[in-house]
Amino acid sequence: MGTGPGARPAGRFTLRVLEIASQLNAAFEGDGECEITAAAPLETAGPTEIAFASTSKAQREALASAAGCLVVPPGLDLEGRTLIRARDPRAAFATIIRLLHPAPPRVPGIHGTAAVADSAQLGEGVSVGPYAVIGERCVIGEGTSVGAHCVMGDEVRVGPGSILHPRVTLYPCVTVGARAVLHSGVVLGADGFGFVMEQGRYTAFPQIGRLLVGDDVEIGANTTIDRAALGATIVEDGVKLDNLIHIGHNCRIGAHVVIAAQTGIAGGSVIEHHAVIGGQVGLGDNVTIQSGAVLGSKCGVLPGKTLKGGGTVYWGVPARPLKQYLESLALIARLPELRQALKELRERLQGAS
Amino acid sequence: MGTGPGARPAGRFTLRVLEIASQLNAAFEGDGECEITAAAPLETAGPTEIAFASTSKAQREALASAAGCLVVPPGLDLEGRTLIRARDPRAAFATIIRLLHPAPPRVPGIHGTAAVADSAQLGEGVSVGPYAVIGERCVIGEGTSVGAHCVMGDEVRVGPGSILHPRVTLYPCVTVGARAVLHSGVVLGADGFGFVMEQGRYTAFPQIGRLLVGDDVEIGANTTIDRAALGATIVEDGVKLDNLIHIGHNCRIGAHVVIAAQTGIAGGSVIEHHAVIGGQVGLGDNVTIQSGAVLGSKCGVLPGKTLKGGGTVYWGVPARPLKQYLESLALIARLPELRQALKELRERLQGAS
Amino acid sequence: MGTGPGARPAGRFTLRVLEIASQLNAAFEGDGECEITAAAPLETAGPTEIAFASTSKAQREALASAAGCLVVPPGLDLEGRTLIRARDPRAAFATIIRLLHPAPPRVPGIHGTAAVADSAQLGEGVSVGPYAVIGERCVIGEGTSVGAHCVMGDEVRVGPGSILHPRVTLYPCVTVGARAVLHSGVVLGADGFGFVMEQGRYTAFPQIGRLLVGDDVEIGANTTIDRAALGATIVEDGVKLDNLIHIGHNCRIGAHVVIAAQTGIAGGSVIEHHAVIGGQVGLGDNVTIQSGAVLGSKCGVLPGKTLKGGGTVYWGVPARPLKQYLESLALIARLPELRQALKELRERLQGAS
Repeated sequence: MGTGPGARPAGRFTLRVLEIASQLNAAFEGDGECEITAAAPLETAGPTEIAFASTSKAQREALASAAGCLVVPPGLDLEGRTLIRARDPRAAFATIIRLLHPAPPRVPGIHGTAAVADSAQLGEGVSVGPYAVIGERCVIGEGTSVGAHCVMGDEVRVGPGSILHPRVTLYPCVTVGARAVLHSGVVLGADGFGFVMEQGRYTAFPQIGRLLVGDDVEIGANTTIDRAALGATIVEDGVKLDNLIHIGHNCRIGAHVVIAAQTGIAGGSVIEHHAVIGGQVGLGDNVTIQSGAVLGSKCGVLPGKTLKGGGTVYWGVPARPLKQYLESLALIARLPELRQALKELRERLQGAS
Repeated sequence: MGTGPGARPAGRFTLRVLEIASQLNAAFEGDGECEITAAAPLETAGPTEIAFASTSKAQREALASAAGCLVVPPGLDLEGRTLIRARDPRAAFATIIRLLHPAPPRVPGIHGTAAVADSAQLGEGVSVGPYAVIGERCVIGEGTSVGAHCVMGDEVRVGPGSILHPRVTLYPCVTVGARAVLHSGVVLGADGFGFVMEQGRYTAFPQIGRLLVGDDVEIGANTTIDRAALGATIVEDGVKLDNLIHIGHNCRIGAHVVIAAQTGIAGGSVIEHHAVIGGQVGLGDNVTIQSGAVLGSKCGVLPGKTLKGGGTVYWGVPARPLKQYLESLALIARLPELRQALKELRERLQGAS
Repeated sequence: MGTGPGARPAGRFTLRVLEIASQLNAAFEGDGECEITAAAPLETAGPTEIAFASTSKAQREALASAAGCLVVPPGLDLEGRTLIRARDPRAAFATIIRLLHPAPPRVPGIHGTAAVADSAQLGEGVSVGPYAVIGERCVIGEGTSVGAHCVMGDEVRVGPGSILHPRVTLYPCVTVGARAVLHSGVVLGADGFGFVMEQGRYTAFPQIGRLLVGDDVEIGANTTIDRAALGATIVEDGVKLDNLIHIGHNCRIGAHVVIAAQTGIAGGSVIEHHAVIGGQVGLGDNVTIQSGAVLGSKCGVLPGKTLKGGGTVYWGVPARPLKQYLESLALIARLPELRQALKELRERLQGAS
């Protein structure tokens, strides 16, 4: 941890607008010499700060802002202001934040209180925080920082350039790739939830499989991903997981899938690359979500089902394409009218007989 | 931790009924000299224990109870029993529990194994447990106890009189007020879930904002609250959060809001003071819940929506006022009748033609 | 932790098929001398590995498998293959996994960095990992292993033969039985969520009750179970809990109940023995689930309700027996038809008048 992301560095960087624009290969308008010391929200930014407006609709807020410089899309007319033009102002702003507020350098070195097994191999520039525990034959790639109180079981591998925030648990034999970001409280590789029922009692089905996590994966606080019963649970490159998510044994999460908080995915499910999953979604066992599907928050998919991809948006329990879901909602909302119309018809028919 | 809340103290306090009544400014009936050593449930309380009945409906259970003394509302007729009368027996009982079972005194002092940065400022009477890690320039208010294995990043501030149970993580720059209670596994200040999509890959939108928590806030086990992207995530005074809750970046939770377990609140949402939120509720981005609204468990609110307050109760997905929700449920339950009635009408019409 | 479940032991066990069959009291067919070194999934198993097929429907996959030996049910015809017959192949396979991949022996002994109170009593063969903290007057049964960074408050009792994975928190006075398995991040005994509202502010209702967990209970990662306000929260023998579950104060979970991930059970609820609860289920306060009931994932039960047991399956919010739930879904799906039929009737009637 130390001076982690979010800490205000003791000294600020100061960049001039023309320097920022140059780093972005972007055009600027107005005062290129304007000095910028921080990124800030549009509503509160001051004359030495930079802010952004995502769309042309934000013209009023942008004009009202006191920001020294604004990052805006083409077509947003703000006369007399100092501007940087970008096709995607939010994406450009992410880069600008990194220029003005760089993550503090990680201090290499192993804290005197860390318990590191002799057989563990730590790459160059690795830092290990207070009271971390690193097991036998672990391999930690160069430049990775392991936070205070992290626990790695035996045979764990973590790739280079990764950040493990304090208090992450990696069970034995878990493998994580390069440039991972694991937030506090994450548990990777606990036993999958499998039992055998015999004579009225459950005994555990031993979970001897593995958990493999690819490169550039980010996992939110207190999220849990279980090892496989047999074979492997797999999280592919570029996956982004929010907080308090549960991924069951033997799942495969495809590349560049993003999943919002508190979603739960039962064992054996497959989510194909670039699917987008909302929050508090529930997938049963052995579900397949095809590439590019979008699952709205709180939706549910029954065990064994497949949802087609290609940008289709699903809502509801059980999940259905958005069009059908909205139709259902609309019809349910009009049930009082339906009932009234039926009542009137019945009265008319009685009158007619 | 140590002898924390819930531990049976080695010696019990003994108070006489008249002393208890006196501390509550309440009237007693029956034997004021009756000695009471513990608070207990109505069903199991014995002659040296005190119990309570919330309402007059509990007369039967109260008569059956063997409690030495009962705390009851006015109007509950229990002849021959020793009673303390209170308008709100449950609230009075909370006070009585504190008299009979006071929280053990916190032992000030810094455990020899705690790793406390030299630049950290610890107030008078602060206690820090085994293996806790306290970062640079942290400020901990007087009388606060930091449990074993807590980790505070740099620049964290915690107000006086707070209790951090074991294994709480506060990321850098998080600020918590006075008299906070943070349960085990809480994670405050992890990165909000924000990404920029470029060329088929997500990169993180840096989360350089802050997390500010007010006074008298209680946060349940394994709950996570993220820092803001820019600006601040804010939890105001007196908020009570249950376990396994997720609060996303840039939310504002108003004063004296209470939220039950496993609820998730997506980024940018605002919950105004004194709203009551049930369990497993899901709020999308940028939702506003107005003051005094009551959200039933498992309800869902779409991104950008506003729910009016003033005591309105909401249920369902999407959340609607209780009256409408119940009507919907009733009409859905009667769909078989509706269908049957339509069938009969059709037959009659065919018969008539 | 150390070489925990899931680690590949440095040396593998080798057993011949006839030895495996003998240990199971089962019959084998084909080459009894075939040497087996590992259990593997059906799809990837090789000639020195054993796999299983649960049902006769898996004949095609079984024939395609390269496994040296297959565990199959009676009636599955696989000529020329080496087989072990079992009525329940999956249950038999669980036993076979334990033979080929035994859990590594726990190394007894207390790590030099563990902080163990002098008054704590540790049974024979107990192991305590790095930086674990064990409080006053704790009692730990023989053969139990306490992982790195576990924290036990004062007066905690854990029975013999239990495994606490790293980073488990047991609050003071919690009692856990024999042969428990507690995964990383579990929090037992935090305060229940009870408050008293007075003059617009909430104050905590002190939670001085206990938490009692029976024998053979397994609890998944980051799951939380709260102590009682008064009396006890009880988890009976043989209960199996998945990850990220919340159990509120004063609940009683009956023997051999199994609950899937992210389910939440509000205070005072009772789940009777052998009930089966899916994932993301929500039970309100003071609910009763009768013995043998099956609750489908994502269902919800209102406070105070009772669901009858005996194998009845419930789905939906609010939860209803499966038959009614499916009928509702079907009728809702046919609302467009219903509306159309009504429209036609109205037109006919208008035509007729």
